[in-house]
Amino acid sequence: MSFRLDKIVVFGVGLIGGSFALALKKAGAVGQVVGIGRSQATLDEALRLGIIDRIGACDAATLGNADLVLLATPVGQMPALMQAMAPHLGPKTVVTDGGSTKGDVAAAVCQHLPQHLSRFVPAHPIAGAENSGAAAAKADLYAERKVVLTPLKENAPEAVERVRAAWAACGATVHEMAPSRHDQVFAAVSHLPHLLSFALVRDLAQRENREEFFRFAASGFRDFTRIAASHPEMWRDICIANKAALLGELEQYQRQLEELRQALLAGDAAALEAVFAEARTVRRAWAEGKLS
Amino acid sequence: MSFRLDKIVVFGVGLIGGSFALALKKAGAVGQVVGIGRSQATLDEALRLGIIDRIGACDAATLGNADLVLLATPVGQMPALMQAMAPHLGPKTVVTDGGSTKGDVAAAVCQHLPQHLSRFVPAHPIAGAENSGAAAAKADLYAERKVVLTPLKENAPEAVERVRAAWAACGATVHEMAPSRHDQVFAAVSHLPHLLSFALVRDLAQRENREEFFRFAASGFRDFTRIAASHPEMWRDICIANKAALLGELEQYQRQLEELRQALLAGDAAALEAVFAEARTVRRAWAEGKLS
Repeated sequence: MSFRLDKIVVFGVGLIGGSFALALKKAGAVGQVVGIGRSQATLDEALRLGIIDRIGACDAATLGNADLVLLATPVGQMPALMQAMAPHLGPKTVVTDGGSTKGDVAAAVCQHLPQHLSRFVPAHPIAGAENSGAAAAKADLYAERKVVLTPLKENAPEAVERVRAAWAACGATVHEMAPSRHDQVFAAVSHLPHLLSFALVRDLAQRENREEFFRFAASGFRDFTRIAASHPEMWRDICIANKAALLGELEQYQRQLEELRQALLAGDAAALEAVFAEARTVRRAWAEGKLS
Repeated sequence: MSFRLDKIVVFGVGLIGGSFALALKKAGAVGQVVGIGRSQATLDEALRLGIIDRIGACDAATLGNADLVLLATPVGQMPALMQAMAPHLGPKTVVTDGGSTKGDVAAAVCQHLPQHLSRFVPAHPIAGAENSGAAAAKADLYAERKVVLTPLKENAPEAVERVRAAWAACGATVHEMAPSRHDQVFAAVSHLPHLLSFALVRDLAQRENREEFFRFAASGFRDFTRIAASHPEMWRDICIANKAALLGELEQYQRQLEELRQALLAGDAAALEAVFAEARTVRRAWAEGKLS
């Protein structure tokens, strides 16, 4: 018997939520997709694009008989959404989210959905992009991507299984981690690089003669700063939600930079080359799949 | 009458020098290409791949009747090469280079080729890549790329014109800048991002459990760190050659990061969002060609 959900509800029909809906539809794994969101224009667009079948509201009619609810908003909005949905969730509805931080989501679930601890399974699809909005959604966004589930100890096994099966139907490979470990790892490999990329573009943007700088920026700059075009509100929320781990990573990186600055100041060519060579070796091994 | 060079000599037949040779050949703009280099294996490969027509030596037979000599080695090797070639250059030979820094090259020319100041035209093709070596060379590397000439005040107009025409024949658009301005701009848009990318990968590489971090690194990390796979010796030389400007950029960036750290520490969501929004706006404008 193949996996199928009769009805799902997606809060936030942008890149993450919209692509989840499209992927499940493409897989024939969902009957009806109902969208909820802050922006009527985005909901209308999602409807027009066939991402959702209808627009719902945060009420019992929409939520009471849903098989799965996905929160796909910036993480800063999730506590208020959980409060709003708490009275309307049906006893069989499983809830998950697509937030890039998990400790804060787990804490919010404990606070705002204490009656639903067995059926809220926090998750993080590793499929960001610098584009956002319903128009950016695509059915194959999650194909061969990773999704990390960070189940709560109170989660019912069948709830975890439903979320896992939904992501598998989207083409993703599903991993499990503890929320705190998740947040530590992603502070290092995702949140910090975003911060660094934003900082570089902002640094240049504030130059008086910035046009001359940007005129000669080439492919290295283009790739380094692609993520600096990411969604400001989403990344603001991620930074605040994962503040402790991100601060630790940022401070370690600052020490790393200071070490490089000292080597540069001293004209220590050998020290610089050793750092670059180590980075190149490891970066190449990673790209060749030899590190992970 | 179309542009054509009877004989060129390329020191260093890797990505930059090899692609220059292939592009001129494809354009029918060169008769004979002679390669010189440190590594016999690379020279043999370049010969086998048709990048060069024969292997030469740093002597009068190779250099005396060349129309154009390109130094396409890491910039740290150029002073010694200039010294070695000085006695053998013919009176009509024009020399140029492909180094990523220009102040150091100009200074080395003054020091080591004082009799040739009218005919050494420093240049920088903006077409780096994280791959290097003869096998990475390709005829279209410079198509629609920029090349910056930083002519010396002693340069003969016809020497500048020959170098300009050669790069134009490769498909590049040619710009001119003062060497010091060039080094300032590229410290910001190229050298600093490379340093930052190397530093991030090295930071992660030194973790005890680095496999877990790299396992969950995704497309944002991939693009941010592509340039961390660049050539360590080449980048060591660039950092040393452009030390003053790069230090200034690095220190400005460190102040920028410290400002972000303070905002994060204070939980100042509005300050973070403002930085991210400014970066996103400018990065998008740049990508759409509206800034340069």
